[in-house]
Parts: sequence; structure tokens; C-alpha cells
Amino acid sequence: MPDRILDDISHRRYNPLRGSWILVSPHRTKRPWQGQEESPGVIDLPAYDPSCYLCPGNKRASGDTNPSYEDTFVFVNDFSAVKESQADYTSPDPPGSLPGLLLRAEPVKGKCYVLTFSAAHNITLADMSPTEIHHIVKTWTDIYTAHISPKSPLAALARPTHLPPTNHHADVGTPKDQYRWMQIFENKGAAMGCSNPHPHGQIWTTTSLPEEPALELQQLRKYHREQGGGHMLVDYARLEREKNERVVFQNETFLVVCPWWAVWPFETMILPAKHVRSLIDLTETEQMHLAEAIAEVTRRYDNLFETSFPYSMGIHQAPLDGTEEEIECSSLHIHFYPPLLRSATVRKFLVGYEMMAEPQRDITPEQATLRLQKCGGELYRKRLQ
Amino acid sequence: MPDRILDDISHRRYNPLRGSWILVSPHRTKRPWQGQEESPGVIDLPAYDPSCYLCPGNKRASGDTNPSYEDTFVFVNDFSAVKESQADYTSPDPPGSLPGLLLRAEPVKGKCYVLTFSAAHNITLADMSPTEIHHIVKTWTDIYTAHISPKSPLAALARPTHLPPTNHHADVGTPKDQYRWMQIFENKGAAMGCSNPHPHGQIWTTTSLPEEPALELQQLRKYHREQGGGHMLVDYARLEREKNERVVFQNETFLVVCPWWAVWPFETMILPAKHVRSLIDLTETEQMHLAEAIAEVTRRYDNLFETSFPYSMGIHQAPLDGTEEEIECSSLHIHFYPPLLRSATVRKFLVGYEMMAEPQRDITPEQATLRLQKCGGELYRKRLQ
Ligand SMILES: O=P(O)(O)O[C@H]1O[C@H](CO)[C@@H](O)[C@H](O)[C@H]1O
Ligand SMILES: O=P(O)(O)O[C@H]1O[C@H](CO)[C@@H](O)[C@H](O)[C@H]1O
Repeated sequence: MPDRILDDISHRRYNPLRGSWILVSPHRTKRPWQGQEESPGVIDLPAYDPSCYLCPGNKRASGDTNPSYEDTFVFVNDFSAVKESQADYTSPDPPGSLPGLLLRAEPVKGKCYVLTFSAAHNITLADMSPTEIHHIVKTWTDIYTAHISPKSPLAALARPTHLPPTNHHADVGTPKDQYRWMQIFENKGAAMGCSNPHPHGQIWTTTSLPEEPALELQQLRKYHREQGGGHMLVDYARLEREKNERVVFQNETFLVVCPWWAVWPFETMILPAKHVRSLIDLTETEQMHLAEAIAEVTRRYDNLFETSFPYSMGIHQAPLDGTEEEIECSSLHIHFYPPLLRSATVRKFLVGYEMMAEPQRDITPEQATLRLQKCGGELYRKRLQ
Repeated sequence: MPDRILDDISHRRYNPLRGSWILVSPHRTKRPWQGQEESPGVIDLPAYDPSCYLCPGNKRASGDTNPSYEDTFVFVNDFSAVKESQADYTSPDPPGSLPGLLLRAEPVKGKCYVLTFSAAHNITLADMSPTEIHHIVKTWTDIYTAHISPKSPLAALARPTHLPPTNHHADVGTPKDQYRWMQIFENKGAAMGCSNPHPHGQIWTTTSLPEEPALELQQLRKYHREQGGGHMLVDYARLEREKNERVVFQNETFLVVCPWWAVWPFETMILPAKHVRSLIDLTETEQMHLAEAIAEVTRRYDNLFETSFPYSMGIHQAPLDGTEEEIECSSLHIHFYPPLLRSATVRKFLVGYEMMAEPQRDITPEQATLRLQKCGGELYRKRLQ
């Protein structure tokens, strides 16, 4: 394989989804580490914590009391980054003027939700079965559905909501405005800025289309036009299945790959083999396949260094509102960005060079794939019991 | 001031230097913090550490021994991310094919240097006088000069080197190839992935123009063309002086601002008031003004939370090699990206939403400016003595 020379030489790889480059330095893993060590993830927690604002029946900062929910519970974030109502703003500087060019601002409205993944305080996605995760996938789909523009071609697919009334606050899914984007994500672990170990994710919706999805949508549309109606991620999934060098796991609907252009040492992406625009396109069976893929990624991550593996994950899919072309070119996929590099306590820092010049990685995505392929099977914590 | 409404509402700001957006949520600082705390910077270190690979007279991983240098010392990084010589690589996939489009790679060669800022193990830039920092500015200028393309319009300005032979390894400044870019940067503090507290920075040169400077250069060139030969950063510096809302410090040549589009809570930028393409354009007096600006930023940072303030800093300037238009449109400036938000131990995490959707900040750059304006004067550690 002539490609394996990439295991030995410094090179850049191109990310067609963002239109950006990454520097890969495979020989650099030999560097000794004398820097900061993370504290390994805490796993000795009670199933119920009276001081946790996410546990069932507990009081939150807003004064609200959580219901005694059983699996998921959704409410509006008590410290939302964006709000539904705020004062109006128009820039005082005309667009043609220098301040109008160099000091540009625009108002953003929106709504931020918190979504618990389980009533139990002491578990994570890695501990959950595909059936349990399926419930989360359904909740995501419901919330997405409740915010989709009536003008979107996807609106016609909306199914009745699966959310039992006890599992969400009355204020969920009644947006005052038509929002443009919904970002579903999870920060897991203290190393990824998560301030509460209770398993939960967040959902931020905004009137603006944020930077990253806007970049991706631009690249996906460009590809669609230039490749005579082809979809980049469908072509990419096919290529990855053929090459079989970066596939960590696959089932009938989804693939888990360490993408060719991965930045983080063990970065993965879940992507469907066929064209799927958003969660709403999935059948019940396909939802279950997605839940299985999520269970596989998170369990393999924990098994890799036998620790509760920190990461940020996020779902990219069709915008809530947009042109027909934008909706059609969108491709559902999930990014996992985990910081650990060598062990439960040694992470990769994306700092000086990475911030000022270009993301840089040490091990290749192919080497990361081999490691993750070997981490299947039962969760290490259960094996140890 | 109608602009002050931006202190209360969520909004996005545009970064014309990168062509990207940032979400600003000023009301969000009220959020309580229960997450990870950093360990405050260690400041109780010996002036000489026998186990430090950067201290004068000590042995390094390569087997080399450092000379007994007095201020700066430059050598080739023992664990370089890029190398001068490596096997050749050409992609096996033709550019028109799907693998050629989706699995693109290109080789990168280069040279990585380490530069100590002082012989003393236990000081930082914040402890140093402008005169001492001036020596570092001269060393950066010398190394930049030694790598500049003979075809560059800047080559004619090259002055004799200031580097005494004992202050650099013989291998410094004798590149085998013409490199395209030189990234000068410093990671300071364990929180920014720095693995050795001995004051030092790094210099990576590559055959490729990395992502960030390529983005900036594209924006600077676009502005130059569209604004009839104007320079974005010169216009921006003039605007900031007029508005006087984001200026932390200024002297005859340089301004320190919290840029309108800052991402990190206390992010700053050093920029000249007139058009300066690269370090080589500066007179001795202007070099001294730059040294003074660096001393001001780093001292104010340490004073802010009375701690050794972590950051990554990097210099952007003209590429080593490029078209006349590229060199002419380049603008020397220095970015400082510090992670701390509320105290010596509570940082801002740019994680889930920021990675998946858009960078998000809590306090406004104007609020950060007010805080940094008040932090002038002597270094807190010296006041406490
Ligand atoms: O070279 P150092 O200081 O050991 O390493 C540090 O800076 C490099 C350049 O920003 C990063 O790639 C590393 O992740 C970081 O730990
Ligand atoms: O909302 P949380 O979990 O308290 O906060 C965390 O996630 C947010 C969204 O990625 C970030 O803006 C915060 O910096 C981070 O600490």
C-alpha cells in the first residue's frame, strides 16, 4: 500500500466538509510528556444526588422543581446563551462606512434547552443500551420536529410527538420566532467544560445559521452542484466502506469512522450510508441503528483508556428553515471530538500552533481506527465487576 | 451611546480578519460555576533547574548540551512536528476522481525551533523589562530574516543579524528548502499545553501556508482591492483610536486592543497604527515599542487575577515567500488567546456549541477592556514583595 507512507511523513489532509486543512505529524508521538495531566473521570457517584439540579424531584436555580421523570426530561436552560425576547438592535453605522464594515454586529434570538439522558445521576451514554439511547434519539427528533419551519419540505414528514407530557416542561417546543438552526450537542466530562456529571445534553436554537453548519452547508451545496447532484457524505461513506481503513463499526444504516481529516486524536463521525437530511428522515428501525452506533462509539471510547472518556459531540443536519436546495443538500451526521491522546490523564492540546496556524495531530486517523476497532465488547466497568 | 445595548442582548459580531462570526451572550456571566478548576500557575520555581532541558548548560533529549547562554538561545526542536528531509509523497488518486477529491493529502516539510526568552528558569515575559523583551524581538526578526525568500520585496531590507553565535545552534537559519510560512508562537502555562515553565516560545516554518494565515491573507487582499488600496488593520487601528472603547494601551507605534471580534474572554491584539508588513519593517525604536506593548499585555494579564496568566500568543506577518501583492497586503500583528474567564482557576471552555456551531463568549470585549485598563502599573508579584 503506497498510502502507508503517510504513517511516516508530515503531511496535510484536506477536510472537504469544512474546506480546511489539518497538519499530520505521525512521528511526533514519541515526544515525552511533562505537562498538565487531567484528573481521570469520576465514576464513583450516587444514583441520586440531592444537590444535583438535574436529578428527578430536585429544585433548579430558576426555582422550578423537576418532575420525577424516568428517562429523559427537557427544560429551558436557566442560564441560556440566547433568549426569546430582548431589546431590538440595528447597527448605528451604515453598511458602506468603515465602522459598518469593521465593527459589524447583528442581534441573535433563540432558545436553549437542557435534556437529561436518564434519571440516574451516575451513568453515561456508554452505560446505556441501544434501546435506552433510542429514547434519546426520539426525544431529539421530537424537539427538532417541534421547531421545523412549516415551509420546510421536511415539515410534511412530522410524526406525532413521542414526548410524554411529564418528560418536558410546558415551555418546550413553542418557539416565539421561526428559528434557523438547532444545535444538539453534549459536553461530557470536566475536561470538556461539563459542570454536572448527570448525563445530559443541550439544544440551542437560534435565528442565525452559525459558523460551522454554514461552512459545511456551503461545501455540501458546492459538491452537489459540481458532482451532478451527488451527495458528498454518501460518496464519502461508500469510499470508506470500500477502503475499509477508517471504519470502526457499521450496521445496516450507519457507519462509525475516524474521518480522513480528523483533528482530535480519536475523533469519530457517525454517518448514514444513504442520503439522510435530518433526524426526521429516519424510520423507527433506523433510529434504533443510530442508537446502536452511539452506544458503540461511547462504549469503545470508555474502553480505550478504561476511563469515563471526555468528549464534545454534536449533530449536524438540515437547518430548521432554509431554501429547498439547502434542505436537500444537508446530510445528517454526528461529530465526536474527544481530547484524550495517550491515556486517561494525558490530552492533546490544540493551542499555539493550532490556534495561530493550523490544527495539528500526532497519530494518524488510521492508527486511531485500529485502536478503536479493538475496543469493542462489554464496557470495561462491567467486566471488572 | 446606542451601542451599549450590546451589553445586554445576545448578538453576533463579525471578524473581518477571518471572515467569521462570534456569538456574544453578555447576560450569561451570572451563571454559577461548578465545573473544572485549573490549578493556579506555579510561581515558586528555582532560577536554575538541573532537570530542565532549556536551562543553560543542561543536556537535551537529543544528547546536545545547551551553551551557557545569557538571554535567548535558539535550537532545532528535538521533537519537531515537521522535518527538513522525508520520503516523497504523491497521492495515488488522480485529482478528478472521488478519492482524489475526498481523500486529499499533500506532503509538508519544514523546521521547528525552540527559543528561550531568558536564562532564568523562573521568570516570564511579565517579569521582563521592555529592554529585555527587545532582545527577543530582535531574535525573532533575525530568524525571520534568515528564512525570507530572496525573491521577496522584504529581502532587500535584511539587516545584519544580531544573533551572537553562542545564542543559537549552528543548524538555525540554514533551511534546505524555501519555506512559505513562519509561525512564531508561545504557549504559556500548563492550561495551554506548555510542558516546561522555563520561558520559551516556538517557531515552526513550513513549505505550506497554513489555514489561519491563509484565511487572513485572503481577507486582507480582498479588503485591499475593494477599498482602493487601503489596509484593513490600519483602518481598524484608526477606528479603534477614534472610538476609544477597546484600547488597553498605546504608544507611538503600537496599540493593544481587545478586538471587536474577540473570542476568548480577555483576548487582545497588538497592532501597529501604520502599515507594517513584517518584523523586518520595524526600526530599532519601533522594535522597542513592540517590546513595550508585549510587556504591557503580559503584565496586565498577570495583574488581572494575580496569577501567572496562561495564554497562547502568535505573530502574523508577511509570508516568507509569496507574490508581491501577498507581501504588500500582509499586516504585522500579534494575537494573545488567554483561556481564563473569572479567576485564576476558572476558565472559559470553547467546547460543544463552540466546536459544533460557533464560538461563544460571555463578557463583551468592551467590558474586558475596562478590566485590563485598570491593571496597569507594577507587576503584582513585585508589589507584594
Ligand atoms: O511543543 P510542545 O510545547 O511540547 O506542545 C504544545 O504545543 C504544540 C504546538 O502548539 C501542540 O501541538 C501540543 O499539543 C502542545 O502540547
Ligand atoms: O452550558 P454549560 O454546560 O454550563 O457550559 C459549557 O458548555 C457551553 C456550550 O458549549 C460553553 O459555552 C461553556 O463554556 C461550557 O462550560
